[in-house]
Amino acid sequence: MKKSGALSVLKKKISNQTAIVGIIGIGVVGRSLSKIVASSGFKTIGFDIDERKVTTVSKQKHKNLTATSNFSYLSNCDVICICVPTPLTRKNKPDFSFIKKSTETIFGNLRDGQLIILESSICVGATRGLVYKKLKSSAKKDNKKFFLAYSPERIDPGNKKYNIVNTPKIVSGIDKESLILAKVFYKTFTKKVIIASSLETAELAKLFENTFRLINISFVHEIASYAKSLDLDIWEIIRLAKTKPFGFLAHYPGPGVGGHCIPVDPYYLLNTQNSKRSNLSLVKQALFINKVRPHEIVRYANHLIPKTGKKRIVLFIGISYKPDVSDIRQSKALVIWEILEKNGWKVSYHDPLVESYNGKKSVKLSKNYINSTNLVIITTNHSSINYSVFAKSKTLIIDTRNALKNINNSNIIRI
Amino acid sequence: MKKSGALSVLKKKISNQTAIVGIIGIGVVGRSLSKIVASSGFKTIGFDIDERKVTTVSKQKHKNLTATSNFSYLSNCDVICICVPTPLTRKNKPDFSFIKKSTETIFGNLRDGQLIILESSICVGATRGLVYKKLKSSAKKDNKKFFLAYSPERIDPGNKKYNIVNTPKIVSGIDKESLILAKVFYKTFTKKVIIASSLETAELAKLFENTFRLINISFVHEIASYAKSLDLDIWEIIRLAKTKPFGFLAHYPGPGVGGHCIPVDPYYLLNTQNSKRSNLSLVKQALFINKVRPHEIVRYANHLIPKTGKKRIVLFIGISYKPDVSDIRQSKALVIWEILEKNGWKVSYHDPLVESYNGKKSVKLSKNYINSTNLVIITTNHSSINYSVFAKSKTLIIDTRNALKNINNSNIIRI
Repeated sequence: MKKSGALSVLKKKISNQTAIVGIIGIGVVGRSLSKIVASSGFKTIGFDIDERKVTTVSKQKHKNLTATSNFSYLSNCDVICICVPTPLTRKNKPDFSFIKKSTETIFGNLRDGQLIILESSICVGATRGLVYKKLKSSAKKDNKKFFLAYSPERIDPGNKKYNIVNTPKIVSGIDKESLILAKVFYKTFTKKVIIASSLETAELAKLFENTFRLINISFVHEIASYAKSLDLDIWEIIRLAKTKPFGFLAHYPGPGVGGHCIPVDPYYLLNTQNSKRSNLSLVKQALFINKVRPHEIVRYANHLIPKTGKKRIVLFIGISYKPDVSDIRQSKALVIWEILEKNGWKVSYHDPLVESYNGKKSVKLSKNYINSTNLVIITTNHSSINYSVFAKSKTLIIDTRNALKNINNSNIIRI
Repeated sequence: MKKSGALSVLKKKISNQTAIVGIIGIGVVGRSLSKIVASSGFKTIGFDIDERKVTTVSKQKHKNLTATSNFSYLSNCDVICICVPTPLTRKNKPDFSFIKKSTETIFGNLRDGQLIILESSICVGATRGLVYKKLKSSAKKDNKKFFLAYSPERIDPGNKKYNIVNTPKIVSGIDKESLILAKVFYKTFTKKVIIASSLETAELAKLFENTFRLINISFVHEIASYAKSLDLDIWEIIRLAKTKPFGFLAHYPGPGVGGHCIPVDPYYLLNTQNSKRSNLSLVKQALFINKVRPHEIVRYANHLIPKTGKKRIVLFIGISYKPDVSDIRQSKALVIWEILEKNGWKVSYHDPLVESYNGKKSVKLSKNYINSTNLVIITTNHSSINYSVFAKSKTLIIDTRNALKNINNSNIIRI
């Protein structure tokens, strides 16, 4: 089939929602996307190598949505969205293995006239250099046509105001036809589609957005240490500064920013090819600040409760990487945990969203339990935690999140 | 008089607007403030050592507002606002000379029961360490009472939406009485007063706000160079990223940020005493990026038009530090000018708001004039400039501000 013919066929299928949509990777991003796509009327198939994720999605019996680990069904799909993780290797280099594997699987199941959309954050140039290059070699051999788009996900887990539907969707295509199709596809379930002039521009816009957050959270950590050294309260300073109605955006300190995006994407920025002329010194410094932030908390803990013959017991409150999610990827609470354990502390934790971790179970929160520990560190401020239990704590509390802002107790140390 | 008596007397005078208000320093900040204060009904006196500023204000015949260089009238004032500059020395150290001089003058004219308010940006601790310490020594000698407050100005020259009245005003006091009076004073002419718990918290909040801007503009310069090295358009990338409705605030590149605040205040942050435990590495790096940004433009200019036997002629468009103001303090256009001249370029400029600079007059903008130069650099995008004149320019144009975004001409280089 000619490309123009394939375009009009697929465009029609997407417009009247008879196209079948495959979503590769049904983690945080893919699961959210697949539900929205299915709800909008498309027959949707979630693909994952992780059988547990497949079972979870299957059990939910969401209308129009099925899940499978059998990737041969990819050839049934008209639109395929790649939502796999792009994590880091141990040496903080981009780990493309999931993208590569997905591309190879699509490669093996490629059918004439499919639209492939990458949603994962990635190095600038990777959609073209990794995905397109591979698929093209398959397509060429069998004279198949395919369309390729890049549209970065902008999901903010736990955000109650903004979701896939009401967050503008950036869309770019390898060619005009791919762009048209991707635009038509996202228009069926999002309120606003924003066109980028190239794959690379869209890729960089995404890395820019997330690196902006890393830079600003690292900056607030720097100012938090500064304020601490002057015996001033960073939380009050932010409260004052954010009353400026222009040219300011509040960011808040914590134990260091975690998760699968903010501390990861800047490394993708650093590892983009052909960008050697720019050294990204601020980005590197921000990554460094984020790396040392947990160590600051550790130093402070060891300073408050110095080592003696007796066992020191610390209780962590909230160990996921952000409030109201259960995700513990890159959570800095766990970094502090690990170091304190190495320093001889006995560790316990309470997290209503994380049942067990590292062979330990989340403890029940009570005044007695708190008073039996030497130190409490509030690392993540889930909204479901009953903070009033800390009101009469005799144990020192390092509150990295200002979770206890409404509680008056001289044992609370805001950092 | 007892302090409580002095409090109720002055509070009444401020409330019924019979208090006389003195404003020391009638530059950008003091002039704006004095007009608002006078308009709100207070008899207002502007003080300045610069006779030209005194004449300018006097000539405007603003109701309730007079100006003088005779500082002995300070003793007539009930409220004294200090709005003098806090610039940098040649070695980028805080220059406190204006603050010190103002304090000494107030010291010499101190009258029982006056309220002194500092509005200038300053090192954390300086209101207490410089102003209070000095005034106290005078007050003690003569058994005089005075009140002291710190309330940082938040004026954004050229901002059409936010002004003194509708921008929340942060207020702090050396003691409860001073805070009460300052609050009552600002409430008479601003919509919202925000209370800070200490002078130092208010001082740091102000430096934090402005340093936030430096950090983010420097970050965007870093990403601009990065995008350039990948042949991508930073302006498009910002346009895409700013469609994210949460967790992002757009900042824009230029020739490097100038003016009397953003590139200055971070040095006040760096030079605050007793803050040595925090090294402010991001802030230092951002200052460095802002310093080298003009050199990047210079390098680019020399790359576009390499040195030959002939004279190279450059035309600057806009030399003030930001659009729609005439202020040239710390303007990076002038840094580029100076270096290019040293590199052998012949410099001319067009700026509708800056009649003459460095012995040169603003040239009239015409197609012929533009084509007679070798290079145009748009350094400041005043809104009153007729940019259509560049539509058919045969001369290369470095557009540092995206001023020509609506003009299609392959001679335009966005940087």
